[in-house]
Amino acid sequence: MNDAAKHDIQLILDLPGPLRLDSGASLDRVRIAYQTYGTLNADKTNAILICHALTGDQHVASDHPVTGKKGWWSNMVGPGLPIDTDRYFVICQNVLGGCQGTTGPSDINPETGLPYGLDFPVITIADMVRAQVAALDVMGIDKLFAVIGGSMGGMQTLEWAASYPERVHAVVPIATAARHTAQNIAFHEVGRQAIKADPNWAGGNYYARKEKPTSGLAVARMTAHITYLSEQALQDKFGRNFQDRDAASFSFEADFQVESYLRHQGITFVDRFDANAYLYITRAMDYFDLARDRGCALAEVFQNTPVRFCLVSFTSDWLFPTSQAKELVRALNSVAAHVSFVEIESSRGHDAFLLDEPEMFDTVRGFLRGAEPTLKGA
Amino acid sequence: MNDAAKHDIQLILDLPGPLRLDSGASLDRVRIAYQTYGTLNADKTNAILICHALTGDQHVASDHPVTGKKGWWSNMVGPGLPIDTDRYFVICQNVLGGCQGTTGPSDINPETGLPYGLDFPVITIADMVRAQVAALDVMGIDKLFAVIGGSMGGMQTLEWAASYPERVHAVVPIATAARHTAQNIAFHEVGRQAIKADPNWAGGNYYARKEKPTSGLAVARMTAHITYLSEQALQDKFGRNFQDRDAASFSFEADFQVESYLRHQGITFVDRFDANAYLYITRAMDYFDLARDRGCALAEVFQNTPVRFCLVSFTSDWLFPTSQAKELVRALNSVAAHVSFVEIESSRGHDAFLLDEPEMFDTVRGFLRGAEPTLKGA
Repeated sequence: MNDAAKHDIQLILDLPGPLRLDSGASLDRVRIAYQTYGTLNADKTNAILICHALTGDQHVASDHPVTGKKGWWSNMVGPGLPIDTDRYFVICQNVLGGCQGTTGPSDINPETGLPYGLDFPVITIADMVRAQVAALDVMGIDKLFAVIGGSMGGMQTLEWAASYPERVHAVVPIATAARHTAQNIAFHEVGRQAIKADPNWAGGNYYARKEKPTSGLAVARMTAHITYLSEQALQDKFGRNFQDRDAASFSFEADFQVESYLRHQGITFVDRFDANAYLYITRAMDYFDLARDRGCALAEVFQNTPVRFCLVSFTSDWLFPTSQAKELVRALNSVAAHVSFVEIESSRGHDAFLLDEPEMFDTVRGFLRGAEPTLKGA
Repeated sequence: MNDAAKHDIQLILDLPGPLRLDSGASLDRVRIAYQTYGTLNADKTNAILICHALTGDQHVASDHPVTGKKGWWSNMVGPGLPIDTDRYFVICQNVLGGCQGTTGPSDINPETGLPYGLDFPVITIADMVRAQVAALDVMGIDKLFAVIGGSMGGMQTLEWAASYPERVHAVVPIATAARHTAQNIAFHEVGRQAIKADPNWAGGNYYARKEKPTSGLAVARMTAHITYLSEQALQDKFGRNFQDRDAASFSFEADFQVESYLRHQGITFVDRFDANAYLYITRAMDYFDLARDRGCALAEVFQNTPVRFCLVSFTSDWLFPTSQAKELVRALNSVAAHVSFVEIESSRGHDAFLLDEPEMFDTVRGFLRGAEPTLKGA
């Protein structure tokens, strides 16, 4: 089987038992959709788990089955790339609560035979990671060489380090934080309200209906998308340029390029994403608070951790600003953890972690190569 | 008539002729709703026009007739206050396109006998100012001592200085800019899309219907409201505090105070604001570009201006950041205009201009007192 054909297949794995959740509920018959790249070595020491962000999925380095676009991190993951699939066995799972094959609110509730909708339990980042661990158990992988992710993926890397330090050698949290801020929660809440305000959302029971809550989901996406870019990036990309015209139309058409771009972002998103999944995943991010969840200071979360950390932030990221990465670095330093930290100069805002950022590539490549002998020596 | 009774009355003024608009259209039978405070002196040299922001209105220093709340700048305008109504005759008009009495999309189109809705012409900041000038003509006020405003009100002060330098002695643009940025346009566009996505918006023809597009307008307001506060202000006010509970509910309730606050902002806004007016006024702000509208550099707009400027910005305002005020100051300095500029240290974001900011009060008070003799000497 050639590589392209391999990635046309949706890999699915069934968890053997019920998945216990932070809420106290548990989920039966959880399926995990995933992709892999590269080959697991004989002693199983080269597995890297990549955790995707809010609207990402398992198609990290191969074409997306719905959009046909290249994998979302195809500049980072592949043969000879920083996360080198000639060296590492790379796994990416769709998160619990997602809509690309892993069990989520759009799936059938075995108890009712109908889609879960809002009967799906509210989940947390820790629940997502618990599902990942269970899936790795099925795959027979006891310990990961590294867990890597940006944004919500970065939250998962931190959760891995905090909850499963014996099962991961190194983590690379990129453009992320130890907890969601009030401003982040606020933007998510606006998105959720936009979805709920759409009559086609129908209390979450829209799966059997012809019309889906696409308008609300598009507005949610548009709002969020602004937060992914810096003011400078929007200025550089669009400024006040008109779209297909030389002057104002004096109408409510998309006169400005930035309007046209945002509308496009909204419209295309709804083809590949489920509105309820958006509610559940944003909620999981809002709940994320590594220290409060453990009733201790952030530093104590990582007391005596054997895990090696490499944190990356971007100067123009205002959603997960450098100050939040530094808070993590300070906490890790105060417990003498192995931590390196790079703040990368970039004008592209939060989305920089998905883009061509050579300093990020060099950092990740260098950190992983440097961590290899420390694993073998362990 | 005592002062309270006076401000219970909605003052209305009819413009005598049609109002010419930047779009080329013109509006017949324009009414301007306004309030005044203090007394016009005999030589008519003490009139100050206050320009309100996007969702503001003419009730600047007296109770709002719908909400019952104190005037939006009652800490700035009144006897003995920085804009001292014992010294100045203060006028505040509801903007053209507004929904507090001045002609806007919710009013009757004389041509059809039905509410304008989207038949209302798209307007600009310059059109708003043109309406203000026409109203002052009716009031018999040839020259203003000062024009003062924050945010969109600040845009109007700049338009006054640029287009009517012979009719205004001094302007105080606060927390504003010479043009709307791509990010500002983007946030407005999201708000407009939220309104249009509400089926009750009905293409703008909702006035005769029982249901109004309140859900869409609330989402628009919530999005905008986040941009009015700084990340720090949200952190200081709410952080990750829970609302009426000690732990996560594992539901989509407003668990966090910041969610509850935003929902409240959305819900209360729809009682006092018209969705179409929101579309028109945001559009006017997006179109604002003082230099491009005149086909010249920003400095040239103010070549040989006799107007005195006092600009104010706030350190944590990310909607109209200090950099934009500085751009204006540089342009004004390069043409040797009378300009003073104060950047005020505040953690409260854009909304600081509406709050108790002693340095702003001192700045405005000092600038106005200092400008008095320069008018008399002119």
